[in-house]
Amino acid sequence: MSARVLVVDDMPANRKILEAKLSASYYSVVTAANGQEALDKVQIEKPDLILLDVMMPGMDGFECCRRLKSNPETSHIPVVMITALDQSSDRIRGLEAGADDFLTKPPNDLALFARVRSLVRVKMMIDELQMRDDTLRDLGADAPSLASGIEPSGHVTIVDERASRAQSLARAISSRLKANCATFDCGADAIEASRTIAPDLFVVARTIGDEDGLRLCSELRSSNSTRQSGIIVMVDHDDFESIASALDLGANDYIMRPVDENEFAARVRAQLLRKNYADKLRESVYHNMRLAVTDELTGVYNRRYVEQHLQRQISHCADSGAALSVMMLDLDKFKNVNDTHGHSAGDDVLRDFAKRAAEQLRGVDLVGRYGGEEFVVVMPETTGEAARVAAERVRKAVGEKPFLTQDGVELTATVSIGVAEVLTRRDTARSLIERADEALYVSKRNGRDRVSVSGDNADVA
Amino acid sequence: MSARVLVVDDMPANRKILEAKLSASYYSVVTAANGQEALDKVQIEKPDLILLDVMMPGMDGFECCRRLKSNPETSHIPVVMITALDQSSDRIRGLEAGADDFLTKPPNDLALFARVRSLVRVKMMIDELQMRDDTLRDLGADAPSLASGIEPSGHVTIVDERASRAQSLARAISSRLKANCATFDCGADAIEASRTIAPDLFVVARTIGDEDGLRLCSELRSSNSTRQSGIIVMVDHDDFESIASALDLGANDYIMRPVDENEFAARVRAQLLRKNYADKLRESVYHNMRLAVTDELTGVYNRRYVEQHLQRQISHCADSGAALSVMMLDLDKFKNVNDTHGHSAGDDVLRDFAKRAAEQLRGVDLVGRYGGEEFVVVMPETTGEAARVAAERVRKAVGEKPFLTQDGVELTATVSIGVAEVLTRRDTARSLIERADEALYVSKRNGRDRVSVSGDNADVA
Repeated sequence: MSARVLVVDDMPANRKILEAKLSASYYSVVTAANGQEALDKVQIEKPDLILLDVMMPGMDGFECCRRLKSNPETSHIPVVMITALDQSSDRIRGLEAGADDFLTKPPNDLALFARVRSLVRVKMMIDELQMRDDTLRDLGADAPSLASGIEPSGHVTIVDERASRAQSLARAISSRLKANCATFDCGADAIEASRTIAPDLFVVARTIGDEDGLRLCSELRSSNSTRQSGIIVMVDHDDFESIASALDLGANDYIMRPVDENEFAARVRAQLLRKNYADKLRESVYHNMRLAVTDELTGVYNRRYVEQHLQRQISHCADSGAALSVMMLDLDKFKNVNDTHGHSAGDDVLRDFAKRAAEQLRGVDLVGRYGGEEFVVVMPETTGEAARVAAERVRKAVGEKPFLTQDGVELTATVSIGVAEVLTRRDTARSLIERADEALYVSKRNGRDRVSVSGDNADVA
Repeated sequence: MSARVLVVDDMPANRKILEAKLSASYYSVVTAANGQEALDKVQIEKPDLILLDVMMPGMDGFECCRRLKSNPETSHIPVVMITALDQSSDRIRGLEAGADDFLTKPPNDLALFARVRSLVRVKMMIDELQMRDDTLRDLGADAPSLASGIEPSGHVTIVDERASRAQSLARAISSRLKANCATFDCGADAIEASRTIAPDLFVVARTIGDEDGLRLCSELRSSNSTRQSGIIVMVDHDDFESIASALDLGANDYIMRPVDENEFAARVRAQLLRKNYADKLRESVYHNMRLAVTDELTGVYNRRYVEQHLQRQISHCADSGAALSVMMLDLDKFKNVNDTHGHSAGDDVLRDFAKRAAEQLRGVDLVGRYGGEEFVVVMPETTGEAARVAAERVRKAVGEKPFLTQDGVELTATVSIGVAEVLTRRDTARSLIERADEALYVSKRNGRDRVSVSGDNADVA
């Protein structure tokens, strides 16, 4: 997948070399000669990846990276620092500034391109999630940010044939991070243990006894349960070929042996941060979708959802010939509650009413708020007579004891209910609701606090 | 990126060869010996890609593909048909059955792996969209399906240095499909024309005069405006190297010269179908997010959104020292409307009321429904006095002419309004709403159809 890459270096020759290499592989390249220019270009060019020199006059690469990562608008753009330094302490400093990887100057082509492909792929997935997120932000909902400064947490699974080594890696993590570690000496056991709850991150040795660690990576990426988990591959020093293969298979990062524990922990931390962030983005979407079908005051379904649901139930009913009934419920003289005790007390009654009604109904019955103090219940495989019995239970549960408001006031309330049953194949959601509504008004006219069934003459005044 | 591939072939030797090749590249491989077994395995194994033999005893590949593509649960899994046939008519038959590509037996490795990588990448993006979609489906909202049988439509941009060739390709499309075509003889013009509206599909020649068509593909994929567009690359016969590069850069499909017009149209159709589907998935997410902040009856914002918005406005106000006012509005004796004329008439009044109120307010004022017949307006940079003037306008607009229901009934209504202004830095969303609510009750107690401002003694009864 092609992408736009921003190359930041104060030496023109270095910029030229990287630009030529990337451009020959059909990447679209933008360059900047210092940290400030990089920050400016990021705003305009919106690159998918940044290759960032460390030692530059003025703002150095660490500072530039920190600024990119602390801005919610740019924190999701991957940064690879390119440097002549090859000290573990520098790599840790870069990772702590938010860098996604380090490459030493001049970068090994295999490592460079595999890293670019891998980070671009992750960026594209995050973009899909971000699109949702921008939508949410437009709509004013709270959106998570990668730049939140919160310490990440999660479950880490380490797979290495030498138990002692796996355990010392686990200690390196758990002594530095809020993470639980599990260790396994073969891939099959690690996969088996992931079936119930997938860990947030796998650390996989390049070879696990006579197993190929890359095959384990491949299985983790091919399986739905572990597809979203992070993967760090552990390779021998300078084994760029394995690094490139692992990244192309979908591994997120690597660590070389001998493992520097601080660097290892910093890489684990970066992956947990990214996983926590992606999880939060997905949750925020789910949460908003849930809100789209829920009445926010009472937590029951909203009118739109009830109507869609009823429509589906009626089609099902027409196909199967099963019975179907609907209840319309309206709290009696509810306006008085709001006027006398305030809206907040009225809201307390509505919430508690929805709860009491649901307690008297089956799990398959769907309770929704239709508007104001009016509720509806869709009851599959239920005759009008059975629905009347259920409605009587609800009516009694409402009237038999007062509602307690949050201010400690006790309020008595009663409910009028109308019931209608599907009678012909011509019945629609609309006609059924209308008949239940008419029955509800019969209850109201007959003195409230009662149940009427549509078409039931005894109940018509 | 690794993935799970289902290989379907009735000849054990053919299955073995493909399995060995894919497995050596770390794909996770599942096999099936006939069409029915393939359909069963798809349900269990949920592959990311299917390599499907055409000529098999019993159900042939065409029929198997058709069944996969007509089932909403499996229609998004890419299918590559592998066949000894090399007639254009067979390729068209396959494409019409929903296949994503054709490879001839034995498949060229370069073409096979580039195709697998490309389709897996598209599948992963669709999966992200589908995840949202499954969520929606769980929640009962209507979800789009690739298997809808609807003819696709869209805008196609053809880039070829020979205008006559580009135009004959355009005719091949527009005579067979619901698509508008534009032709360009250089990449820069095509990109320039895409800035306002991105086409759904680009058809790009491998070389465009002295331009490299692959570089154009790369630019299209790197630019935010065209990233979601489809790309078909036009290459010389058997130029597998260009095909592989193009697919790796993010092209979706290719066509070989000399171009068979029917096959070309079939490939364009398949890409438009996919693009229409992805667009619909994204729209459905956006639509649902929008619903999460909107009151469905009146179309104004809902209570949750108003409260979040007010909270943000108050923080802003505390920082900047700007004025901020809030209006609470309650339709007078509204219960009577519902009881006398029915809920449907009441709903008509609420809808029209929200519209009339908005007409009297500025674009920066935010109107929301707070519950029942109660509405709220958040007015940035507005003093209590200015808000009172606006509230008087709203009050008059409501009372001066009757509301017309859908049943043609004219109903008169009045509104009581309470206004509160932020007075101290200690004011919160809650305290402000409470004070506006108190002022609203002053209006009610003083006879309704009037405006009161919090703290304004003249209005207190």
